[in-house]
Amino acid sequence: MKRPSERAAEQLRPIRITRHYTKHAEGSVLVEFGDTKVICTVSVEAGVPRFLKGQGQGWLTAEYGMLPRSTGTRNPREASKGKQGGRTLEIQRLIGRSLRAALDLSKLGENTLYIDCDVIQADGGTRTASITGAMVALVDALAVMKQRGALKQDPIKQMVAAVSVGIYQGVPVLDLDYLEDSSAETDLNVVMTDAGGFIEVQGTAEGAPFHQDEFNAMLSLAQQGLNQLFEAQQAALSA
Amino acid sequence: MKRPSERAAEQLRPIRITRHYTKHAEGSVLVEFGDTKVICTVSVEAGVPRFLKGQGQGWLTAEYGMLPRSTGTRNPREASKGKQGGRTLEIQRLIGRSLRAALDLSKLGENTLYIDCDVIQADGGTRTASITGAMVALVDALAVMKQRGALKQDPIKQMVAAVSVGIYQGVPVLDLDYLEDSSAETDLNVVMTDAGGFIEVQGTAEGAPFHQDEFNAMLSLAQQGLNQLFEAQQAALSA
Amino acid sequence: MKRPSERAAEQLRPIRITRHYTKHAEGSVLVEFGDTKVICTVSVEAGVPRFLKGQGQGWLTAEYGMLPRSTGTRNPREASKGKQGGRTLEIQRLIGRSLRAALDLSKLGENTLYIDCDVIQADGGTRTASITGAMVALVDALAVMKQRGALKQDPIKQMVAAVSVGIYQGVPVLDLDYLEDSSAETDLNVVMTDAGGFIEVQGTAEGAPFHQDEFNAMLSLAQQGLNQLFEAQQAALSA
Amino acid sequence: MKRPSERAAEQLRPIRITRHYTKHAEGSVLVEFGDTKVICTVSVEAGVPRFLKGQGQGWLTAEYGMLPRSTGTRNPREASKGKQGGRTLEIQRLIGRSLRAALDLSKLGENTLYIDCDVIQADGGTRTASITGAMVALVDALAVMKQRGALKQDPIKQMVAAVSVGIYQGVPVLDLDYLEDSSAETDLNVVMTDAGGFIEVQGTAEGAPFHQDEFNAMLSLAQQGLNQLFEAQQAALSA
Amino acid sequence: MKRPSERAAEQLRPIRITRHYTKHAEGSVLVEFGDTKVICTVSVEAGVPRFLKGQGQGWLTAEYGMLPRSTGTRNPREASKGKQGGRTLEIQRLIGRSLRAALDLSKLGENTLYIDCDVIQADGGTRTASITGAMVALVDALAVMKQRGALKQDPIKQMVAAVSVGIYQGVPVLDLDYLEDSSAETDLNVVMTDAGGFIEVQGTAEGAPFHQDEFNAMLSLAQQGLNQLFEAQQAALSA
Amino acid sequence: MKRPSERAAEQLRPIRITRHYTKHAEGSVLVEFGDTKVICTVSVEAGVPRFLKGQGQGWLTAEYGMLPRSTGTRNPREASKGKQGGRTLEIQRLIGRSLRAALDLSKLGENTLYIDCDVIQADGGTRTASITGAMVALVDALAVMKQRGALKQDPIKQMVAAVSVGIYQGVPVLDLDYLEDSSAETDLNVVMTDAGGFIEVQGTAEGAPFHQDEFNAMLSLAQQGLNQLFEAQQAALSA
Repeated sequence: MKRPSERAAEQLRPIRITRHYTKHAEGSVLVEFGDTKVICTVSVEAGVPRFLKGQGQGWLTAEYGMLPRSTGTRNPREASKGKQGGRTLEIQRLIGRSLRAALDLSKLGENTLYIDCDVIQADGGTRTASITGAMVALVDALAVMKQRGALKQDPIKQMVAAVSVGIYQGVPVLDLDYLEDSSAETDLNVVMTDAGGFIEVQGTAEGAPFHQDEFNAMLSLAQQGLNQLFEAQQAALSA
Repeated sequence: MKRPSERAAEQLRPIRITRHYTKHAEGSVLVEFGDTKVICTVSVEAGVPRFLKGQGQGWLTAEYGMLPRSTGTRNPREASKGKQGGRTLEIQRLIGRSLRAALDLSKLGENTLYIDCDVIQADGGTRTASITGAMVALVDALAVMKQRGALKQDPIKQMVAAVSVGIYQGVPVLDLDYLEDSSAETDLNVVMTDAGGFIEVQGTAEGAPFHQDEFNAMLSLAQQGLNQLFEAQQAALSA
Repeated sequence: MKRPSERAAEQLRPIRITRHYTKHAEGSVLVEFGDTKVICTVSVEAGVPRFLKGQGQGWLTAEYGMLPRSTGTRNPREASKGKQGGRTLEIQRLIGRSLRAALDLSKLGENTLYIDCDVIQADGGTRTASITGAMVALVDALAVMKQRGALKQDPIKQMVAAVSVGIYQGVPVLDLDYLEDSSAETDLNVVMTDAGGFIEVQGTAEGAPFHQDEFNAMLSLAQQGLNQLFEAQQAALSA
Repeated sequence: MKRPSERAAEQLRPIRITRHYTKHAEGSVLVEFGDTKVICTVSVEAGVPRFLKGQGQGWLTAEYGMLPRSTGTRNPREASKGKQGGRTLEIQRLIGRSLRAALDLSKLGENTLYIDCDVIQADGGTRTASITGAMVALVDALAVMKQRGALKQDPIKQMVAAVSVGIYQGVPVLDLDYLEDSSAETDLNVVMTDAGGFIEVQGTAEGAPFHQDEFNAMLSLAQQGLNQLFEAQQAALSA
Repeated sequence: MKRPSERAAEQLRPIRITRHYTKHAEGSVLVEFGDTKVICTVSVEAGVPRFLKGQGQGWLTAEYGMLPRSTGTRNPREASKGKQGGRTLEIQRLIGRSLRAALDLSKLGENTLYIDCDVIQADGGTRTASITGAMVALVDALAVMKQRGALKQDPIKQMVAAVSVGIYQGVPVLDLDYLEDSSAETDLNVVMTDAGGFIEVQGTAEGAPFHQDEFNAMLSLAQQGLNQLFEAQQAALSA
Repeated sequence: MKRPSERAAEQLRPIRITRHYTKHAEGSVLVEFGDTKVICTVSVEAGVPRFLKGQGQGWLTAEYGMLPRSTGTRNPREASKGKQGGRTLEIQRLIGRSLRAALDLSKLGENTLYIDCDVIQADGGTRTASITGAMVALVDALAVMKQRGALKQDPIKQMVAAVSVGIYQGVPVLDLDYLEDSSAETDLNVVMTDAGGFIEVQGTAEGAPFHQDEFNAMLSLAQQGLNQLFEAQQAALSA
């Protein structure tokens, strides 16, 4: 088995996390998983949605978008079509759930964090890059809140990151790019905490159904990759 | 551990699959998982979406909806809000992928099958009931197509069904109802084939992250439940 | 003249009204006019729309929908089209006006009743079945409000029901099914009170214009039919 | 009984029909029923909607709108709200059905007539003024088509006009203005042909239910008024 | 050079401003620039948008629309398309900015003025006619407010009017009609105050780019035309 | 007068044009006017809109967007609001007109060029930066078309660029950043060709009206700035 990317089965693409990428947001990161590039910003706003009012806790919500020509052929702009597609909504719900798992919302005060993940170049794995990068932007945004005196406690419970694994020509492979993803038999997205717990596991058989041993092999591979992603997050935060 | 439903951990709710539930659709099933009740219809239309034209193969797509008062408090009607929510789109995409996995679309001719799953009463597990019931409606619809001479080959590769599992008070439990789902720590939806392969696995940690041994225990429990669901499908189809 | 349904000119289809059809709504009825089947629910919510605030009275509003395959060929789902069609809006406005006529809204307190009529199988007369069935669900919902202590007085002024009449091959006929409706020259929907007053009369010449004597003959026939429908409502409520 | 408008019970408001009101449309009329003023245009376009293609017949469809400040208080513009309301759709469906009844569509060729009725000042009876005025614009538009050689036969079967009647303080009154309409017990819109047949009859009890004798009295009154409206149409067309 | 309209280069079309054109609005004008006819109404509502609340000042906002058959071929109704087009939004933003420049909003109290400009017949220059006519309606609406005691001071700082100029066959011409506009090389819309200041200047090269001397010639011509328009406004207001 | 940015009145911000910024688009540029950063891509698609079919010419259209947190406070995502705002539509219409002026569309073949300008960081002048950067991406995209053999002739007639000028504390200043723009009395956007002709001139008095001498001073200043921008474009294209 040789991957189209010529990477080893367990090899991530080059990971780059650039903090303070744009100047206005409380947290702003450019995350790159190889040729996949996503701008992740975190915006802090006072107040919470109606269903949480008066409960003394905060909220985090996420939105995801792709620039029309982030992909090989141009996709019509969702703003001009007048609605977000199902794939977009599915991904932004996943990002939101994943990052809420990083926080103790009761320590956030009545504030809302808006995560925006905008793909400027897509080559597979945009949702996993988004989660991994947004986690770093979230740490930065909370630091800004602390400086502003808007936080009494640290709401971070744990770091969260995400990676994809798949089965390519019968072999589990890590962090699929677009070409690999298109021909993989199975596609699995795994979101974990740095303490080794699972937050989300979403596996889809693209071709033949998969079996439990393959599943377990994929989960192990994901864990290996995620350990490197947690290191990359820490390296970026220490820089 | 005692489940709110007083069921044993590995016990499904009463499953009822009523075929020919409405008269117009080529396939029409009322599926009940306890108090969860979903009407699943399959409609056959000649032609395929543009991206498949001229390739001699068919297509299957799914839509999902809930009656406004299928739930404990009324949800605004999506048709009057002017758009389908993210949860709705996520579920209908899952139903579509799951049932496409049951078929060899190249044996369907240039026809499109529309799966409509409409929840008339919700009590947890509406997506798994939808997939399980729609599979039976799909078999009926293909039989009608055969009778009409619209099929040369049988497009069914395998039966597909779905069930939820979760961890409730530390114990893996099968087929959660709404109350159990609301307080479960983890929620896992599993779609399998009757040959024992996985089509979709979607697990979410609602509270604490989950671990691989819990994951494997949940998958085993799901497999047990799915064996009973495949039997229920066969029983309905033989009736 | 022989009706396609082989019914006598003045004969209703078999009428069935099943109360407590779903478990969450304060009132929930499955109403069947022959093969036309509609789920009617009544949901009670505290509060009134802005234009009524502070006036101490209540409100009732209605929504109507059809499952995509409730009809002979599949209709695109309004929620995915992003808007309700003109026919839908016209019908739900009719249902709302008709049922408001049953109530003294000043005795309802500042509460809003949502009527949802969802057609699961259509064979002509869905709007008349909706009104007739929703009236029964309304009685049930008000009884629940009374039990909850949310009503001081009985807001029901009169029972309301609806039926269609038409002219088929020159002869006035009652309660047209889809086939009859498609070939009728005139279509008249009549909403009355059990005291014999008219709430709504909507007549449309589908082919040739109609004349006053035909009109009067149709109204008489409607009254006959409505008397039976009021009996069917009472029978259901006494069961 | 004294009407707020001080008219006799059977008295129409002053009716004015101004042809060739705007210059671009094939037919263009300003119709005034007292202070109610509606611009009715008829636009001719080659081709028919998809459901009629290849059948050699034409089509007529109508749209209705109100300028935001045609009414006593400003109504938000439907174009900026992003959708037409239920009342608008109900009225434009009525206008379309009524004017289709005037034509033998099989003599129209594969052409579509767009009726646009735009209310520039509203004082009750906008839908009846719209139908009455649009009928005149329709005659003019067909004459233009004839001149262009686009018509081989005259598609007009009969003239159509509309009027409202109501019961005000127990007495049937003709052609209600806004003030009268607001306090009338019953509101009835009647569309007839000049040969004396009914096309549409829509009656609504605003307060107390109405009875058959009142109904018949209102229909007679409508017929009287419509005879005058047919004369006004003819006078305009002869001018 | 001979203009299609046979007017002299510096000649306006006949300008007519009819006040009190409809009866409900606080200000209501029919403005005609030749065959271009626009109804301009001004509606007064208590309150201001959220971003201005509590600041003691007022607001003015504008909306623009065209009747579907105000043009040579019918344009689909924006209300039924479900959104306003870019041209519409661009024009109504221009109208709003222009008329806000006429007012000292701090003297308006917490009131909102809605300007509605609806084109009933289009022949070029609809936006300039709209601004010029709406200014007169604005004066009338403020007089009504004064009469009602809703204004303590006169908020009008200056009169505002607008005109188009273009380059037709190399020569600057004033107030282009549709035919001239279609074949002009440059199109310039100029909004000025009666004190001779510019509020908005928007020039577009339709064909060849234009140069500064042409630009200055066009601005001079616009000023000439605007002086006549300010006179026409005064004449109408004195009538 | 001292500008907030401490620049001289006639001084541009640092201009950076980075070609080949993303990998999928035929042309892709990151343009920076100081802290304003816009990704401009040009996508080539075979075919033209319906109104141009069969005429042998091409088309160019533009879309504009801002990432939600490209600004000081987060703006709701237009895709999730379900429509593009008036400002967005106004800007993308301006970009499209400006770049069409650079091309002889009859030499483009039946191809459509989609310009996408997405602001990743905003600090004033996003529309002028978009036009200036997109022009460079357009040159690159046409070169790709030539290489693919999709162009027989060079469709570029002239280079196009844009800059803003304003009056700040009575003095004309070039290329306003956000802070300067917010307090400028007048805002003028100028689009020119490298041959010295005007394509678009859009001036708005934000506070006091402006006069012709100020206008001419601003135009001269714009021309100075544009000369530098044309050099920056050439420098980027030669790199």
